[in-house]
Amino acid sequence: MTTPTPLSPTDRSTIRRGKHRAVTERAALHAVLDAALVCHLGVVVDGAPLVLPTGFGRDGDRMFLHGSTGARSLREAATGVPVCVTVTVLDGVVYARSVFDHSMNYRAAVVHGTAVPITDPEEKTHALRLLTEHIAPGSWDYARRPTAKELAATSVLALDLTEASVKIRSGPPGDEDEDVRAGEKWAGVLPLHSAWGKPEPDPTLVGEWDVPPHVAQRAGTPYA
Amino acid sequence: MTTPTPLSPTDRSTIRRGKHRAVTERAALHAVLDAALVCHLGVVVDGAPLVLPTGFGRDGDRMFLHGSTGARSLREAATGVPVCVTVTVLDGVVYARSVFDHSMNYRAAVVHGTAVPITDPEEKTHALRLLTEHIAPGSWDYARRPTAKELAATSVLALDLTEASVKIRSGPPGDEDEDVRAGEKWAGVLPLHSAWGKPEPDPTLVGEWDVPPHVAQRAGTPYA
Repeated sequence: MTTPTPLSPTDRSTIRRGKHRAVTERAALHAVLDAALVCHLGVVVDGAPLVLPTGFGRDGDRMFLHGSTGARSLREAATGVPVCVTVTVLDGVVYARSVFDHSMNYRAAVVHGTAVPITDPEEKTHALRLLTEHIAPGSWDYARRPTAKELAATSVLALDLTEASVKIRSGPPGDEDEDVRAGEKWAGVLPLHSAWGKPEPDPTLVGEWDVPPHVAQRAGTPYA
Repeated sequence: MTTPTPLSPTDRSTIRRGKHRAVTERAALHAVLDAALVCHLGVVVDGAPLVLPTGFGRDGDRMFLHGSTGARSLREAATGVPVCVTVTVLDGVVYARSVFDHSMNYRAAVVHGTAVPITDPEEKTHALRLLTEHIAPGSWDYARRPTAKELAATSVLALDLTEASVKIRSGPPGDEDEDVRAGEKWAGVLPLHSAWGKPEPDPTLVGEWDVPPHVAQRAGTPYA
């Protein structure tokens, strides 16, 4: 057993608003990142922010970001500029007695750092395997592996999970005492549930196909 | 009937990668924004990007962003600096015959601009009503309305939807012809379905309560 490194070692990754919702364990950061399939990658382009949804994977205390070599956000991020990667999972809507205390239940992770392009083919293949297995578990072994040309056309960046924060809101509303005492309004949470549906075979498949186990087994299971 | 203003009037909101996935109708932008409850607000702080999940609402061709007056991203965004707001809905995982053509089905909207703080109490109340009704339809009329003090503690920013882009991927994988012809692998889409669950009443409610219709009716309905 190793002692987990606490998060929030820097000023900008220290949560000030809603401190009671800040989570400082590294395991919580990993859990949020592992739960979601899409992150939001922020870079600065010509002095303005650019935020784009991006696929990712995780390898211990590093995350991999993935995209086409032509994608602007990844191209910018690969130049050694600061990036911010945010992963958010929405868990429900919090119906309070007052409009003011309405809220959302969510899990959010924010990672600050500098992304590093992965160019070594072996390391890139390792990163792509983790990315693929994060998005589509089982596909790395099932599908045709990337050719050298495809590998070259794929951009993979690595980002250390050193500077990060996690914020989680869960549970019932936090109404004002007098609203609770008044007893005039219902309050509670409407949870949001996400799950994988029924596989939709590609219309170009010829003949009869069984859905492969890695896809069939995911159907019906919860997401995030 | 008015002719909708096309999107992408600027260089940075013109999609270059995956052009065939770019959608240029304003109605598509509205539809993506209306589907999701959380946006990712990007601002530049000390030269580095900061991306935080934020609640929002829409009023025609403006969106409202919402948070505590203490939230750093909103405080920065309120100073007239450029912002980028991105809304992403994940619709499924695309299992291709090759790892390279694996993908995700999604709807994403990216808005660039300068956010303007709303300070006029009447306008702020209007914005908060739209924000509340976006997140919790029916709550504005049901719950206790904000007091002047609560209104003052809430920060609302407006952002014009002038400079925006929409990108949507849907449908089956786009495998290489030779992978399709080889006929060796299954391919298809595993859709992701999100829906509102069963209301969870606040444990501090005293006595017997019916779940109010605006909450009860949402339960079981799809999200996004």
